[in-house]
Amino acid sequence: MAEQSFQLYDTTLRDGAQQEGMVLTVEDKLAVAMELDALGVGFIEGGWPGAVPRDTEFFRRARTELDLKHAVLAAFGATRRAGVPAPVDPQVRALLAAETPVITLVAKSHTGHVRDALRTTLAENLSMIGGTVRHLVHAGRRVFVDAEHYFDGYQLNREYALAVVRTAAEAGAETVVLCDTNGGSLPDEVAAVVAETHAMTGVQLGIHCHNDTGCAVANTMAAIDAGAIQAQGTAHGYGERCGNADLFTVISNLVLKRGREVVPLERLAGLAATGRAISELTELPGSAAAPYIGESAFTHKAGLHASALRVDPDLYQHTRPELVGNAMRTLVSDMGGRSSIELKARELGYDVEAGSDEVARAATRVKELESAGYSFESADASFELLLREELTGAPRTRPFEVESWSVSVFGAQAGDAGETVRTEATVRLSVQGRSITATGHGNGPVNALDTALHAALDPCFPALARLQLVDYRVRVLSGETGSSADARVLISYQDGDRRWGTVGVDANTTAASWHALLDAVHYVLLDERPGRATGAPAHHALAEPLSP
Amino acid sequence: MAEQSFQLYDTTLRDGAQQEGMVLTVEDKLAVAMELDALGVGFIEGGWPGAVPRDTEFFRRARTELDLKHAVLAAFGATRRAGVPAPVDPQVRALLAAETPVITLVAKSHTGHVRDALRTTLAENLSMIGGTVRHLVHAGRRVFVDAEHYFDGYQLNREYALAVVRTAAEAGAETVVLCDTNGGSLPDEVAAVVAETHAMTGVQLGIHCHNDTGCAVANTMAAIDAGAIQAQGTAHGYGERCGNADLFTVISNLVLKRGREVVPLERLAGLAATGRAISELTELPGSAAAPYIGESAFTHKAGLHASALRVDPDLYQHTRPELVGNAMRTLVSDMGGRSSIELKARELGYDVEAGSDEVARAATRVKELESAGYSFESADASFELLLREELTGAPRTRPFEVESWSVSVFGAQAGDAGETVRTEATVRLSVQGRSITATGHGNGPVNALDTALHAALDPCFPALARLQLVDYRVRVLSGETGSSADARVLISYQDGDRRWGTVGVDANTTAASWHALLDAVHYVLLDERPGRATGAPAHHALAEPLSP
Repeated sequence: MAEQSFQLYDTTLRDGAQQEGMVLTVEDKLAVAMELDALGVGFIEGGWPGAVPRDTEFFRRARTELDLKHAVLAAFGATRRAGVPAPVDPQVRALLAAETPVITLVAKSHTGHVRDALRTTLAENLSMIGGTVRHLVHAGRRVFVDAEHYFDGYQLNREYALAVVRTAAEAGAETVVLCDTNGGSLPDEVAAVVAETHAMTGVQLGIHCHNDTGCAVANTMAAIDAGAIQAQGTAHGYGERCGNADLFTVISNLVLKRGREVVPLERLAGLAATGRAISELTELPGSAAAPYIGESAFTHKAGLHASALRVDPDLYQHTRPELVGNAMRTLVSDMGGRSSIELKARELGYDVEAGSDEVARAATRVKELESAGYSFESADASFELLLREELTGAPRTRPFEVESWSVSVFGAQAGDAGETVRTEATVRLSVQGRSITATGHGNGPVNALDTALHAALDPCFPALARLQLVDYRVRVLSGETGSSADARVLISYQDGDRRWGTVGVDANTTAASWHALLDAVHYVLLDERPGRATGAPAHHALAEPLSP
Repeated sequence: MAEQSFQLYDTTLRDGAQQEGMVLTVEDKLAVAMELDALGVGFIEGGWPGAVPRDTEFFRRARTELDLKHAVLAAFGATRRAGVPAPVDPQVRALLAAETPVITLVAKSHTGHVRDALRTTLAENLSMIGGTVRHLVHAGRRVFVDAEHYFDGYQLNREYALAVVRTAAEAGAETVVLCDTNGGSLPDEVAAVVAETHAMTGVQLGIHCHNDTGCAVANTMAAIDAGAIQAQGTAHGYGERCGNADLFTVISNLVLKRGREVVPLERLAGLAATGRAISELTELPGSAAAPYIGESAFTHKAGLHASALRVDPDLYQHTRPELVGNAMRTLVSDMGGRSSIELKARELGYDVEAGSDEVARAATRVKELESAGYSFESADASFELLLREELTGAPRTRPFEVESWSVSVFGAQAGDAGETVRTEATVRLSVQGRSITATGHGNGPVNALDTALHAALDPCFPALARLQLVDYRVRVLSGETGSSADARVLISYQDGDRRWGTVGVDANTTAASWHALLDAVHYVLLDERPGRATGAPAHHALAEPLSP
């Protein structure tokens, strides 16, 4: 039975977004929220409406576009300004305008911060907290209060810190969240302060930790053991400086080590997949060493362990990896290549023989290509094309040939109207001996080439019509040799309800993109001949290699 | 005063080397040992002589090549095999042959492991421990015993686990190290077991933790609080699965949070440098978010924080970064608002007034541009151009104007020779009313445009000659709308010994690159007029805004 009363509060989209290098679009934020909802967190803090334009926009779009099944949205903001009544404070109005079921207010609980950062009196700060909470509760919102710098403030002036907690609760705040904002606390200190605060106030408490002593997860666990009923954290521990408490680790520890089913077991089994999906959206990969869901979390290399692992895997793992959707891996140094190719080929539905020549050839080619800069991890379609060639032992059958391609971009100043830019691509292909020339326009070389390819081929191969380019990334492979270094282009496509990728590497970036575009077309046409309108290869249809 | 009796034990070279992806040569290991010695750890575990040929070689060379000032070397190995007397066991002989002052023996303390992995009786295991320790002590070695799987074993059969500790100590082991080998423990469990073990046996204890619950550092701290006098860990928390306890974090916590000077303060101030040196040797960078020494560990982005940082940096940092050889940084972002603009401006050497209109205007523009897709975190040059415009209150003075630009890429099949690709760019600029047209070739549009720009401008502005494009990245801003979405291009340059970046955003990817290229040229030319060959702006030269 899932534990109903415990509050899992995710702040990836607000505090996590302070992570260096994280830039989320509104679309990214909506997609991350859907992932967190599917995992089963109770509260998703979406941002700071009124202060960050993108967050205001997120809440506006969330109302119509976000169909949460389980979680509720929280808007984050500050208490009213000193001397300004809550109902007319623009920032408080923006919080209400976000129309979320929950509003989380940050409140100062450290006398030094009230004086030096807020520049107001201790009494006015309490009045700001009480007044703002009352106003929001009166407007029908559930209100949480984040007591900022609580642990440092508590050491400095315990009575004032406690007064903040009491004031918030008396004004109607449902939970007061004690924040280790600077992240400098250790678990014993956190446990003591949470227990004392609970004993002195009787208020329902939450915990919000940062990882500056490497103890964010432990501090969160200690606070929960001491009575906190809300845990705040972020996906992968994203956050500024050393990050926030990793909510994924906290959830796993609570369920698997404490037997507190804060998410149901069947959702916990999706945790690793949730982690991967969110990493792709943020473009910030989680650590391979991340507890529970990291790709190395259940990977064994030690000889000492290997013999024991054969006898009983549970002797050398602290929990079963499948409970969080992860898997055990053993690193067998120089066999790593072939076995991972075999594994991947089976994943794709190919019936390959262990240790076969075909697999050895594919492994050798992958190794060569990877040392030339290719990367197949997110280019499954390019990998499958390569695998097919090796499994069938014949060069790829090409439904068309490329004769030439070109693309031009022209920009000119157009007076006050600014700059006008025009991009045009031309492709010359031959399909069964017939030459086809087509032209396409677009926003940049890749888009124009894509458009030209579709214009040339869609009439012959109707299956291509539904292939849509959704994302591409360019990586310069050597940072030391200027823009004349090799470039790797990864392109992602939507193909009906499937999403897959291709890779191209070339000294010329546009050529690298062109090769990745061609791989996509060849992938869709694997089972096609001109005029035949069958579907693209689905994995289940690839159970055996094509005859050449 | 440094705390003499506490034992800091580094196992980077043995347990840390089990980290996925770590391959150390003997030279690497010798160099890592020198770094650890300079930091001030007491014990450096060099490897497993007799089991790993590279480790045998390490100890052989260490005798003549390693000049440790402070630390002593430890060789790691197992107790004698069942039924084999210690003096003739080849692995035990190899341990003595390593000629280290300390030998650390791993001993099984979990009855399941004795039975299923070691396949011997509980009594014989105790005899193996006692006999091997006695033999090594008799040979003049200090002996530590790592009690493997101690915490799991203690839960399963407490009496046996305690018997292992007693047996080792009675045979002469100096410290018995309780190991959370599978890493599944939480701090309260570790604290209780360490305290109970100490109370029941009176033996001097150490602690060895893994990070599978995200609590390795907290578990180590809890064990020390409960009486352990030896902490084992690794540089950067290297280790298999989720890694070992990060010894750098443990040391920092002990010194700065507990006031236990386990290394002297002057050595602690070298910690960040030690971390960087070891990362370079292992080729495995530490996390930017690593507590204390990560490059983001004292980096601030939040607007909420930035205003307080202005008043008093200590309000928003849990310790002084210089104590560990780190530094505070500020990032410019839409979450930073005015205060982070102010801080960044001061970092760049501009004497801005707090709360001035200029800062407000710059903050508004950064916000607008970021919501349009710009990102200034790694585009400091583009930010500085923007800042200058706002500070001077006048549009940027442009040393040249763009009339038009174009770039073409042409690819063609050239028979068996494969594909030939040619890229050509043409720029038409006007410098002081004189029109200049130049053409450049390159590997892709960005490189060709860069070449053409240099060809057109270098004769007029010699300072540009040393500007070198070293990296660029393209990000499609919306993953949902195909390649016709906006693109953000980030370009990095090397300019003498400085490195900085620019950003461009446009619906057309090539136009986005072009704008980022232009920003770089404008940045170098901030203080230039045609024909004047002064240097590029250095930060100290920007102490006040240019007159328009």
